[in-house]
Amino acid sequence: MHQSRLSGFIIDCQTDDLEAAAAFWSAALGMPTRQSPGEEGRYVRLLDPAGRLHIEVQAVSHESRVHLDIESDDVEAEVARLEALGATRVANVHTWTVMQAPTGQRFCVVRPQDPDFARSANRWA
Amino acid sequence: MHQSRLSGFIIDCQTDDLEAAAAFWSAALGMPTRQSPGEEGRYVRLLDPAGRLHIEVQAVSHESRVHLDIESDDVEAEVARLEALGATRVANVHTWTVMQAPTGQRFCVVRPQDPDFARSANRWA
Repeated sequence: MHQSRLSGFIIDCQTDDLEAAAAFWSAALGMPTRQSPGEEGRYVRLLDPAGRLHIEVQAVSHESRVHLDIESDDVEAEVARLEALGATRVANVHTWTVMQAPTGQRFCVVRPQDPDFARSANRWA
Repeated sequence: MHQSRLSGFIIDCQTDDLEAAAAFWSAALGMPTRQSPGEEGRYVRLLDPAGRLHIEVQAVSHESRVHLDIESDDVEAEVARLEALGATRVANVHTWTVMQAPTGQRFCVVRPQDPDFARSANRWA
């Protein structure tokens, strides 16, 4: 048995100026920013006042997009579940796995991001 | 004075088989589906068990992606606010406006989607 759920999304920005990118999205969405620790300063967190989702702005070298994150207490088991649904594994990066949906979008399977995870995530046999 | 906030996101799928696309995302995210009324059957809603966000799967003719929706009680005032932040107006469609962020992503400004909107949305002078 493992658990998973939608964690949130990452706003991938093809930019050398992460600060300006995060400033735009912070103002657009009305969410204050908090620098994410580590990861070579490539992430800025946006704090949803309603605490609904985990949202980050990321500087990337590929085209700009928005990608979803699915959080799980067993990343490998969750990747296998998603492969059975038709998704494909693209890459393992640090503690997460990049996948591609049968509908074309890239998304990531990550470790639990939220203290509330165990109580509210889906359970898969 | 007007209000706005992040409403949710739309999973845009370049497909002729909206049902299959929605089935994948429903199973992947662990969210039941509900057919959205009208709009020529191009949308299926995904119901977040935690009620956090408004999420839909949409059949589109452009490349697959995920786009964010910002909801507002005054779409025109919100578009003007976002233009002042550096976003550009792409198109007016029915009751919403498609915009492009200075970081490259397309997103939409839509009417309020959630009964909780007035209480929790940001207020802009």
